[in-house]
Amino acid sequence: MLKHDPVLPPEFIYPIDDWRWVERRPSSEFTAQSETTFSTANGYLGMRGGFQEGRPAFLHGTFVNGFYETWPIPYGEKAYGFAKTGQTMVNVPDGKIIRLYVDDEPFTVDRATMDNYERALDFKKGTYERELIWETPGGKRVKLRTVRLVSLTDRHVAALRFEVTVLNAKAPVVIVSEMVDHSAEHASAHHEHAGVSPPKMTEEEDPRLAKSFKHRVLVPDHAEMHDKRALMGFSTRSSGMTLGCGMDHLVEYDGEVVVSTIPPDGVAQVAFRYTAEPGKTFTLTKYLTYHTSGTERASELRARSGRTLDRVMAHGFDALLADQCRFMDDFWSRADIQIDGPAHPRVQQCLRWNLFQLLQATGRVENAGVPAKGLTGQAYEGHYFWDMEVYVMPFLIYSSPEVARNLLKFRHGMLGKARERARELNQKGALFPWRTISGDEASAYYAAGTAQYHINAAIAYALKKYVEVTGDKEFLCEYGAEILVETARLWYDLGFFSDRQGGKFCIHSVTGPDEYTAVVNNNAYTNLMARENLWYAAQAVEMLRKDFPQDYVALAHATKLEPGEAADWQRAADLMFVPFDERTGINPQDDDFLDREVWDIKNTPKDKFPLLLHYHPLVIYRYQVIKQADIVLAMFMLGNEFTREQKKRNFDYYDPLTTGDSSLSACIQSIVAAEIGYDDVAIKYLRFAVLMDLADVGGNVRDGVHIASIGGTWMAIVYGLAGMRDYDGVISFDPKKFVDKLKFPLTIRGQKLIVDIDHGNVTYTLAQGAGLAIMHRDEELKLTEGKGVTKQV
Amino acid sequence: MLKHDPVLPPEFIYPIDDWRWVERRPSSEFTAQSETTFSTANGYLGMRGGFQEGRPAFLHGTFVNGFYETWPIPYGEKAYGFAKTGQTMVNVPDGKIIRLYVDDEPFTVDRATMDNYERALDFKKGTYERELIWETPGGKRVKLRTVRLVSLTDRHVAALRFEVTVLNAKAPVVIVSEMVDHSAEHASAHHEHAGVSPPKMTEEEDPRLAKSFKHRVLVPDHAEMHDKRALMGFSTRSSGMTLGCGMDHLVEYDGEVVVSTIPPDGVAQVAFRYTAEPGKTFTLTKYLTYHTSGTERASELRARSGRTLDRVMAHGFDALLADQCRFMDDFWSRADIQIDGPAHPRVQQCLRWNLFQLLQATGRVENAGVPAKGLTGQAYEGHYFWDMEVYVMPFLIYSSPEVARNLLKFRHGMLGKARERARELNQKGALFPWRTISGDEASAYYAAGTAQYHINAAIAYALKKYVEVTGDKEFLCEYGAEILVETARLWYDLGFFSDRQGGKFCIHSVTGPDEYTAVVNNNAYTNLMARENLWYAAQAVEMLRKDFPQDYVALAHATKLEPGEAADWQRAADLMFVPFDERTGINPQDDDFLDREVWDIKNTPKDKFPLLLHYHPLVIYRYQVIKQADIVLAMFMLGNEFTREQKKRNFDYYDPLTTGDSSLSACIQSIVAAEIGYDDVAIKYLRFAVLMDLADVGGNVRDGVHIASIGGTWMAIVYGLAGMRDYDGVISFDPKKFVDKLKFPLTIRGQKLIVDIDHGNVTYTLAQGAGLAIMHRDEELKLTEGKGVTKQV
Repeated sequence: MLKHDPVLPPEFIYPIDDWRWVERRPSSEFTAQSETTFSTANGYLGMRGGFQEGRPAFLHGTFVNGFYETWPIPYGEKAYGFAKTGQTMVNVPDGKIIRLYVDDEPFTVDRATMDNYERALDFKKGTYERELIWETPGGKRVKLRTVRLVSLTDRHVAALRFEVTVLNAKAPVVIVSEMVDHSAEHASAHHEHAGVSPPKMTEEEDPRLAKSFKHRVLVPDHAEMHDKRALMGFSTRSSGMTLGCGMDHLVEYDGEVVVSTIPPDGVAQVAFRYTAEPGKTFTLTKYLTYHTSGTERASELRARSGRTLDRVMAHGFDALLADQCRFMDDFWSRADIQIDGPAHPRVQQCLRWNLFQLLQATGRVENAGVPAKGLTGQAYEGHYFWDMEVYVMPFLIYSSPEVARNLLKFRHGMLGKARERARELNQKGALFPWRTISGDEASAYYAAGTAQYHINAAIAYALKKYVEVTGDKEFLCEYGAEILVETARLWYDLGFFSDRQGGKFCIHSVTGPDEYTAVVNNNAYTNLMARENLWYAAQAVEMLRKDFPQDYVALAHATKLEPGEAADWQRAADLMFVPFDERTGINPQDDDFLDREVWDIKNTPKDKFPLLLHYHPLVIYRYQVIKQADIVLAMFMLGNEFTREQKKRNFDYYDPLTTGDSSLSACIQSIVAAEIGYDDVAIKYLRFAVLMDLADVGGNVRDGVHIASIGGTWMAIVYGLAGMRDYDGVISFDPKKFVDKLKFPLTIRGQKLIVDIDHGNVTYTLAQGAGLAIMHRDEELKLTEGKGVTKQV
Repeated sequence: MLKHDPVLPPEFIYPIDDWRWVERRPSSEFTAQSETTFSTANGYLGMRGGFQEGRPAFLHGTFVNGFYETWPIPYGEKAYGFAKTGQTMVNVPDGKIIRLYVDDEPFTVDRATMDNYERALDFKKGTYERELIWETPGGKRVKLRTVRLVSLTDRHVAALRFEVTVLNAKAPVVIVSEMVDHSAEHASAHHEHAGVSPPKMTEEEDPRLAKSFKHRVLVPDHAEMHDKRALMGFSTRSSGMTLGCGMDHLVEYDGEVVVSTIPPDGVAQVAFRYTAEPGKTFTLTKYLTYHTSGTERASELRARSGRTLDRVMAHGFDALLADQCRFMDDFWSRADIQIDGPAHPRVQQCLRWNLFQLLQATGRVENAGVPAKGLTGQAYEGHYFWDMEVYVMPFLIYSSPEVARNLLKFRHGMLGKARERARELNQKGALFPWRTISGDEASAYYAAGTAQYHINAAIAYALKKYVEVTGDKEFLCEYGAEILVETARLWYDLGFFSDRQGGKFCIHSVTGPDEYTAVVNNNAYTNLMARENLWYAAQAVEMLRKDFPQDYVALAHATKLEPGEAADWQRAADLMFVPFDERTGINPQDDDFLDREVWDIKNTPKDKFPLLLHYHPLVIYRYQVIKQADIVLAMFMLGNEFTREQKKRNFDYYDPLTTGDSSLSACIQSIVAAEIGYDDVAIKYLRFAVLMDLADVGGNVRDGVHIASIGGTWMAIVYGLAGMRDYDGVISFDPKKFVDKLKFPLTIRGQKLIVDIDHGNVTYTLAQGAGLAIMHRDEELKLTEGKGVTKQV
């Protein structure tokens, strides 16, 4: 099912530019969204794209990945094993603020008269830039130019360059640079300022938004101010994490500048006062740094912040910018997709924005995960979900395998807590948290949280793909196998061989990816993915035993692996029950799915979507109605376990039941539609995926980007349009005839493949590497470096 | 399944006495429990049986039925339609406190050296009494005697008589009488004082306990003190209810008594000081009154309290006591059960205690319901559940039909809110709250709360029984029919005619009485009870249309009844789907029940019960394991819809799966076991039911009595041992051969029937009434007043 077509903001405001996301007119209509869409981040540090003047603003947001506050999860009625501790990514002190006063008049975009306004997120340079000419109420014309970057080469650093030129007169100018703690604030407080109409339902009722803290989260440790530098230390009130941050400034101006400071107490200020001469540019460069820790003292991090500022100031802004461009060039060489059509006239621009967001969410993620909103907002509390493994990991595996490895290693680091959680849930093995930052389960509604055991299989699946595509068996031996053993154990303990199902292995009381049914028996997706997990675990253990006997011994020691366990997993997998309905020929989503009433989507008023905000869960669970791909997702991820006919029957059945209330839906529907020859449907869904955020399909982009959908968009291109499949590490392509031009690189086992579809032909070129075998449909192609092989689409 | 046999406290502490519950030695082991078991209450006002000295104490508790505080229900993740407002019965100011000091030494039972100690709850007099001789550290022997009563004739009044005699010396004596606000306190604060070991799990994690308020709930309005009288007014902080209460004192002593007071500020005190002469008795009579309201001002209630005290003091304590005795005589004439065996040697005493508790929970309930713990504790927040209709109502219908009528009228008064709640749940008709005081749904865990739609049918069922047994068609016309229309509408809208079940009417995503499975499809109990509800609604509407056309017009107007609705209900009921499994020949509890794994109860350690405190709901839901009767309950309530063979098969299947973790289980298992000839099982379960509280089977009697089990105990005697059935108002008996002596009265259509089983014979006597037809097994007996008919058992 497809709701109204997504509509981008108008071109006279947001013009086409293949390498930038550009705003040509300030528009209060898009203030909140643009804070998200203009975000800058590096996977460790993120800043929403708000105005440096501090207003208008929806939510001042600066985030450090993995830096969270905890709080006791409240329950009206508690039960045994409910998750106890909530975690919320903290809004760290906002360092982007630079206020400007000319003739004592403050500049803000919502009140100023302006010419030549433009702001842009530049995908090539990795910067956010703004230019404009402000005509003050007194007739002074003031040229402003800002460049903002969150460094990809130096992940603790952000920098802003701010240039002011009064063009036509002398004028007194004051520039106030701030670093200010917003940690207790919440988006809703800003609605008025942002010119945003209040949401239809109270925000408290929207389960997707972050907790609003009633108190200041960051407890100041000690702060110091020397010259134009402020250094601050904080600890969180409850989680006990520490933060050091600081700002420093370089002024370039040929004339007298008076500097004054306000010592930091929640707000650190450095003010610059000078008398502007016509045409003479005042340049302020502001450096910011953030360091966080779960163990070190705030004072140490504060000192470290000082050292970082010393270093980066010596390096200089131009050098930072040059580093950033080099990093971006390298990224695009591995990740750029050139496309012409088919989903939308602006597909190239929008797609690059998507890819850039993927980079921003993951580029320098180290010992942390990928939050559902990247580092662009606090919705979903900044938690890591299965999105990371299922929606983001494929892109990373094929473009930045070292980042993929980091994420899997991060999951491995959670194993201890996942084992504890399995014990709390009265199970063996390990159960990864449905949502978390710290590794502790933080889902407060288990039916759409803890019950999603399938996250275990998602991690195993991503691990398998990583190992197969990169060839990194060392990782499998050192980290992966332990994950496989513990996840397989969980499945084996969770399910049972059912007499009533002829001895088949059944898994009960779980929730699949589709949260519009919950706590069901034999969710097909879960069973299929659990099977894959069990198989792969058995296979990996056997492989280690044979090929890496020393690693096997270490694994057996670490996991107390018993002889026969792998055989048990193999047997459970072989006997896995997969729901199938003889009458309709489809795979029911779960044991009871077909017994439910069909929801009448066509006659449900549009303003009742997403259903979860307008119907009690009990009502939704009672119907055949789908929030997101579930069987369809399984048919993509485990496509080699379904015939084409089966895929068609299932898609025909489920697609009309799918509301797409989840942003994770469109990309997957697109891929499977493309595979089964539903070209128009594939294109339509692709349009939804590509435009999800920029057209604000869900109406909530102001709360952050949808990283899963963005990762899914990459998949919809590569797996959908180019028809790539990588079952068991065999890379094959089946490009779709309706694709005119599409070109993209893939990193496979350390080699670089270029796929270039051009009006009926597809050329596979091994741009770098010793040799690679791939499949074009059923035909094997053995590629050698530098030589392209062209085939008919 | 039966856990360890229940064990009463030892006889040397709690001796046998058929008309009293007596404690002969003070025992710290039973301090907390005895506060519950010695409670005095009248259905409106309740006082826990704590020591008047204020310590040792587990929980000082005084409760007014229907007087509650509200609080926003917290959710870690909220969803649409979740209940918003919690309600908790307030602990109102404690007026029972009378402290005694001799030679400035305080008296408390836990430290005193005592002779001739006895305290007793007297079932005949309706009083709580205590006598003892205290030997002070200085060798003074002090005789103490107290009588406490919560008046059944004057429901706003309680009174205490307190007599002190220093037997062997002159001594300075101080007596301090108090009325003190404990509303922000919580049982756990008292553990230390009560000598109770702290509970194994933190109380916060036990979902059955009441919310503990962190602040003072009662906001003082104004208080006044004149002479020995204190009057106080309060309003609740959040629910906006008001309370007026007061105490006054009468001193009888032949000598000088100095009176001093402390004006009330949370604690009102009146102190009496005199010099005791040996052998001369000092008598203090303390009168208490409580008035509550949802609309009136606290000052008005305070004034009303003054007027009540004026009146009751003029009436005097002896008159109050005499009234109480008369009320009790009348009660026992309608409700007493004389029994000899079979369940336990002390069955007579324990059974009378149970019946007395039923009276205390319901005697003067007016415009309120029956809380799950009566007025003996705040557990379950003082909420009204379906217990009221299913477990308590039968006793009331057959002994105090006017109270039954009040309760049904109270439910009718909730219809407005129940309609609103149905709308919130996206349904037509009315949905009664699973738990409530105010009429608003207060269940914070919908899977074991709101999802229990079956409460609608429980109310309809109780209504039907009330109308059939009393013959009160007027009530049906005036109130009942409207309940039936709205509940039937809910069912008709909730379910659907399922193609996959051959057009049968199915009801999905509901939770039955057994909370160890939740949110299931076609819960057999729910479907059967919904069918009864639909049938009875259709029948009632048709009856009104034919026999009471004016009432029909009023009903159609009030409910906007459409022609054809009743026919729809009839059709849905006729086509109701009832799960049946061909292979086993049993009725599965729900569509999926038999697909689940069987929980290994035998090998589950005893300390893991109740399961709900040791296993995550997801784990419990995954198994065939039962908290309480569900199919078995249906086989009792709708026994005429099952064959005896079917009952046997079902019982054989389900009984081994039943943990009895719910106190609602044993009584029902006993009744059905008795019916199908499992005499030993019936007797065992009856023992559990009768001793549930006095033997503290669940280990939580300190938190309050189990009113449902107590009502169920009456049912286990009358429906179980005497084999009474009343399907469609036809009263039949099938006394069990294993019953030696059992005699009890029943009120049927305003007439009084005595059933007397005596060693193989049963005599049915119409003690009062114009004539009554009953069945002895298949034989109809036409009884006329005063003439007994004897049959062989």
